[in-house]
Amino acid sequence: MNEVTKPAAGSAADGIRAQMETLAKAARDASAVLATATTEAKNSALKAAAAAIRARAAEIQAANDEDMAKAPNDLKPSFRDRLKLTDERIEAMATGLEEVAALPDPVGRELARWQRPNGLDIARVATPLGVIGIIYESRPNVTADAGGLCLKAGNAAILRGGSESIRSSRAIAGCLQDGLRAAGLPEASIQMVPTTDRAAVGAMLTMPDYIDIIVPRGGKGLIARVQRESRVPVMAHLDGICHVYVDAAADAAMARDIVLNAKMRRTGICGAAETLLVDRPVVESHLPAIISALDEAGCEVRGDDTVQSLDTRVTAATDADWETEYLDAIISVKVVDGVEGAIRHIETHGSHHTEAIVTEDAATAERFLSGLDSAIVLWNASTQYADGGEFGMGAEIGISTGKLHARGPVGAEQLTSYKYVVRGNGQTRP
Amino acid sequence: MNEVTKPAAGSAADGIRAQMETLAKAARDASAVLATATTEAKNSALKAAAAAIRARAAEIQAANDEDMAKAPNDLKPSFRDRLKLTDERIEAMATGLEEVAALPDPVGRELARWQRPNGLDIARVATPLGVIGIIYESRPNVTADAGGLCLKAGNAAILRGGSESIRSSRAIAGCLQDGLRAAGLPEASIQMVPTTDRAAVGAMLTMPDYIDIIVPRGGKGLIARVQRESRVPVMAHLDGICHVYVDAAADAAMARDIVLNAKMRRTGICGAAETLLVDRPVVESHLPAIISALDEAGCEVRGDDTVQSLDTRVTAATDADWETEYLDAIISVKVVDGVEGAIRHIETHGSHHTEAIVTEDAATAERFLSGLDSAIVLWNASTQYADGGEFGMGAEIGISTGKLHARGPVGAEQLTSYKYVVRGNGQTRP
Repeated sequence: MNEVTKPAAGSAADGIRAQMETLAKAARDASAVLATATTEAKNSALKAAAAAIRARAAEIQAANDEDMAKAPNDLKPSFRDRLKLTDERIEAMATGLEEVAALPDPVGRELARWQRPNGLDIARVATPLGVIGIIYESRPNVTADAGGLCLKAGNAAILRGGSESIRSSRAIAGCLQDGLRAAGLPEASIQMVPTTDRAAVGAMLTMPDYIDIIVPRGGKGLIARVQRESRVPVMAHLDGICHVYVDAAADAAMARDIVLNAKMRRTGICGAAETLLVDRPVVESHLPAIISALDEAGCEVRGDDTVQSLDTRVTAATDADWETEYLDAIISVKVVDGVEGAIRHIETHGSHHTEAIVTEDAATAERFLSGLDSAIVLWNASTQYADGGEFGMGAEIGISTGKLHARGPVGAEQLTSYKYVVRGNGQTRP
Repeated sequence: MNEVTKPAAGSAADGIRAQMETLAKAARDASAVLATATTEAKNSALKAAAAAIRARAAEIQAANDEDMAKAPNDLKPSFRDRLKLTDERIEAMATGLEEVAALPDPVGRELARWQRPNGLDIARVATPLGVIGIIYESRPNVTADAGGLCLKAGNAAILRGGSESIRSSRAIAGCLQDGLRAAGLPEASIQMVPTTDRAAVGAMLTMPDYIDIIVPRGGKGLIARVQRESRVPVMAHLDGICHVYVDAAADAAMARDIVLNAKMRRTGICGAAETLLVDRPVVESHLPAIISALDEAGCEVRGDDTVQSLDTRVTAATDADWETEYLDAIISVKVVDGVEGAIRHIETHGSHHTEAIVTEDAATAERFLSGLDSAIVLWNASTQYADGGEFGMGAEIGISTGKLHARGPVGAEQLTSYKYVVRGNGQTRP
């Protein structure tokens, strides 16, 4: 999976680079057409692609069966699960494309408009980014999700899926191209990288003239290497070490429900809480019920000395626990002194992803919300809301932990740039 | 000037890297304080810095005199001119800081806010970017301009000016730090890199953990190398090959005035026009007067065969002319077929910076405005309006030709990121 940029030797790598350049140039040409494509054409392509996925479901399933059969025996069960397609998952891809079609067109939005004293009328108008390269592990559904979202925002997509899912992804990409053809849009608007050679990824990361942005989706190893080696700007998220802070002024039942949901609703997503911070005055009143609820839900609780003294089921947390994204049914718990102590801990050990405070005190809440430099900060709500769909954005290509361009959930709007359109009546600058 | 990242040998480079890490960590710490600094504190620092520049003008001038005396004899006159400070230029820096103080605070702006059906209240709120590294050539005023703009947006700045201006820049940075001290803000909010060793630049470009964005300001060589070698995201502009297209439906006098202004008002700025495209039907009616006006203003006119046939003062344009940013009193002129021909030429040869159309036909204008993928497109106005001040943004750190994060003039607003602030009343995700 960490097959990022180690190139094939000599002339083989040169051949792949040449092949990738041809593909990327075609994407660049397609992006020029997409930039002025009508909303109707883009939506019609998305809907036709959804129809094609339904019509060719058996073919997609057969391709996936072959991927599953040829997958290495030592694949982790979670990896194998993400690779597998079912009737429901294929239908979900089709529905997802229809939902993206139903979103407002993010291109052409007037983001701001003002008049200058000299009469110039200045508008900031959303435009596509251009060509987006998506590098992902073996999740076939990303082919449809990412391809559809890029198209909606008027961008050409170059999709480089994991080698284990290549047959499934090719079959799905074929349906997307059916949709493009039906709508009269260039087929090169969405292209699968045909080779599974890792040199293809190296080529994508070093073609800033043809690719405007790279979005890696997958494990930490993949993302870190892409960020390190790419000459093309990267939009990605690294760790999601999310915190819930239970303040002295928290409602005890609300605190228990939010912590339980933030940790255990789904433990494998980036918005899952990893560390619970509890304000010292309510350790004895609020924390025992929270620990019991977590334990009963099957969560391992690791705590500092004070937390351990509360419940024999709590094991000892080490320093490493404060900086670990478990993505599993494990939580670390620490006692802190007030909101300032919580902010200090989070700024020191967190990953600037998502943090929640539970409190009935508005001033304390506002201090937490403004004092933390995280993409998402919540007051009296679960960290598991860190999701483009839950934000009402319709779909997301991921959650960005970077601060440039887009931060937090990345939906169709975040896959756009803008330009300034200035209308005058003969103005010349003095 | 192209002294970018070639490191000093061995342990010297290690020493500089260690020194730069200390400086960058201090910037990161300062940025945490700045992120929640009040508008009043930031503005008070800017105003106190302006006062310090006035109070210490003689000291700044003496430092600049020494820079000028020690500058190599073979410096180009334009370079020498940018290096030189005068009473007026020192006062302009002070005034500039006061103007930045008067701008609205870009941090804390509510960029969007909406309610979800489950009652969650979601706000997108502007935040500082963090730490900004500015790498610039020997223009002492950039020290004040860039430092002030970064501070206004709540960012810590690391300033690495050209070695020829180091004494002037240090004196100016001292005034900025006087301002920070007076306002009780950390002095490390604005730091000059103390060494002129080029290894310091290499260190800045490879510290993504401490520096959030690099803004290079200077010649093409500097910018291209920074873009190529940086591991930190870069916001920069490369070429400004700007076009004016005179359409068949253009008013002849307006076309002449706009072309003359776009080319000749100032030839050395990035928004100066480099190529004039003329619609075939008005070549004989509109172009001769434009050529005469340009010639009389001292502009060399290079044209295609048709343009040469109109006026003996026109010399032959070669293919290279269509892709040259002269930044000088030279213009290339080509006949094209309608707005589609103009768009094709600009998309092929342009640099996606700024383009203008002159026409009385609204439909043709809209086709030009929407059909071009440039940061700024203008209808019936001069390309020289490509400027943050002219856009009403108060001040700019430069003009971005990239499509990520910010495009076009980069002012205080564009030096911010955002976060999501979510307010609930106990919501847990189903």
